[in-house]
Amino acid sequence: MKEGFLRHAVTDGTTIDQHILEIFRATPGEVVSGEELSSKLKISRTAVWKHIRNLKTLGYRIESVPSVGYRLVAAPDLLLPEEISAGLVTERIGRQIVAFNETASTNETAFKMAEEGAPEGTVVIAESQSRGKGRMGRRWESPSGVNLYCSIILRPPILPLQAVQMTFLSAVAVARGVEETTRLSPTIKWPNDVLLSGRKVAGLLNEMGAETEKVNFIILGIGVNINMEQNQFPADLRHPATSLRIESGRPVDRVDFARVLLRELDTLYASYLAGGYGAVRDEWLARCAMIGRRVHVDYRDSAVAGLATGIDEYGALLLTLDDGRVERVLAGDVKLA
Amino acid sequence: MKEGFLRHAVTDGTTIDQHILEIFRATPGEVVSGEELSSKLKISRTAVWKHIRNLKTLGYRIESVPSVGYRLVAAPDLLLPEEISAGLVTERIGRQIVAFNETASTNETAFKMAEEGAPEGTVVIAESQSRGKGRMGRRWESPSGVNLYCSIILRPPILPLQAVQMTFLSAVAVARGVEETTRLSPTIKWPNDVLLSGRKVAGLLNEMGAETEKVNFIILGIGVNINMEQNQFPADLRHPATSLRIESGRPVDRVDFARVLLRELDTLYASYLAGGYGAVRDEWLARCAMIGRRVHVDYRDSAVAGLATGIDEYGALLLTLDDGRVERVLAGDVKLA
Repeated sequence: MKEGFLRHAVTDGTTIDQHILEIFRATPGEVVSGEELSSKLKISRTAVWKHIRNLKTLGYRIESVPSVGYRLVAAPDLLLPEEISAGLVTERIGRQIVAFNETASTNETAFKMAEEGAPEGTVVIAESQSRGKGRMGRRWESPSGVNLYCSIILRPPILPLQAVQMTFLSAVAVARGVEETTRLSPTIKWPNDVLLSGRKVAGLLNEMGAETEKVNFIILGIGVNINMEQNQFPADLRHPATSLRIESGRPVDRVDFARVLLRELDTLYASYLAGGYGAVRDEWLARCAMIGRRVHVDYRDSAVAGLATGIDEYGALLLTLDDGRVERVLAGDVKLA
Repeated sequence: MKEGFLRHAVTDGTTIDQHILEIFRATPGEVVSGEELSSKLKISRTAVWKHIRNLKTLGYRIESVPSVGYRLVAAPDLLLPEEISAGLVTERIGRQIVAFNETASTNETAFKMAEEGAPEGTVVIAESQSRGKGRMGRRWESPSGVNLYCSIILRPPILPLQAVQMTFLSAVAVARGVEETTRLSPTIKWPNDVLLSGRKVAGLLNEMGAETEKVNFIILGIGVNINMEQNQFPADLRHPATSLRIESGRPVDRVDFARVLLRELDTLYASYLAGGYGAVRDEWLARCAMIGRRVHVDYRDSAVAGLATGIDEYGALLLTLDDGRVERVLAGDVKLA
């Protein structure tokens, strides 16, 4: 694949590499004999040795203790499917994870995979993106090794009109993930930026393939600034940006964050499928810092200002104008007035 | 390409094959000398001969008159880009036409091409489809050589919410095309079937690739039963079907029909871009046989009945129920009550 080296695709935690890691993790820091690995995995000693060598290539530090066995010293600081899947209990999301060192855009890759029939819940992750996409054709800064760039394929049985509801669902999941891993209190900006101290820490770009009366697939594109430092942001950013590390004052484990995010997405999506949009909307409204306040919206050459009062089922921001009329805003850049 | 032999892609009528055909058509029935072709096209006599041979392979009957020249006797009954482009004057649609002997589905091919950046107005045509798609996952019967199966790529600057408006636009274009080529009076059934004598003569399946706030592309999928005979329809059709030939009592030239359809689409699309949805909606309403009448709608396990009074900007059919409430129908099968 031209987008870079495909690391691994994991389904249901059943690869041999992953079994080996599970055995190591069952007794942390202990030496495991080659014989034990060989008998548990039902493969030869030579095959065990080859898999250990493969894990080392991926960045795992594994010590060989002569005539005793192997010990896992450290996992690499990489978003490996083997790591994210470990301990991830979800119903739909993350059953298949595909990771790249670099891809043009995880959304683009996921879109193509969805078209080719990839199952619901497939996750595409990359350490870096060469053409990361932001909202409205903008660029999303995607340096390597410090952040999370991922795209999730969903196939909800909804109409294209309702697809925007997934945007709110993913914003709520990201906010939950940020809160859970850092204890900070993120807010949401319409339609789907997640902020810390008023600065953007995550951006969401959803795409879909649809027929007039049926969504075929939706791609939830999620970029979260995790360990990016202040000097890694470009100087000409349209909106002030920050990262979990800058805000919390300490590095955040990217694999932990990814796992928490996928779990929250899974929970929210299950509740959406069972009970509809209401619960997602309520949590989104509770987390949105703009509701009940006066805002400005710019869209192409026009602008409007008013009191933000809520969102409707089509994702429009409801603004009460000074003359009392209610305006439905479907696209644009919003800021507090 | 696995979907079959790619015939030709024509842009702006500039291929040599097409120039040769234009020269023949300027003096119908006349012999044109190899020398004249060679000097007008600025290619060698041998190259002229090779192009003539190629045109014969495509199905053109061209007579070689020894030591005089060539004469075009007949064009093949095939939807060749060279034929459709001849005399087609449009602003956007059909500037590039790609034709296949067979493809799985012209919509699928066009969707992939759009993703890869194919320009607005690109038309994909096939003589037959092995997996022709109808609405709501149904199959569209696509026998070879008798009908028109085509997909058109558009890139209107609209929101995903408004994409359904393109469905109504393509239904109006098909109705105009049927009227113009047969003098019959087609009607439209919500959302986008075109009927003759109450039987389906064309089906439309639109698809899109979109972001939350921006349509990237829309595929207008159009299937028209042109010269299909009664015994070519499968016995188990959900809705009664017919063809232009059955209704008009005589065969219809498929190339003529395609040319008229592309021209009508081009005109309607230009008016939509300049003046919005209003004119399309008005013509759709005037051509829809259901407005002002009592209808039944089935969708999955539910059903509703009422008086059809119009459509809204999201494409919903507006029904006035017996108790006076207005119901917005977004998907389903409609029939007269």
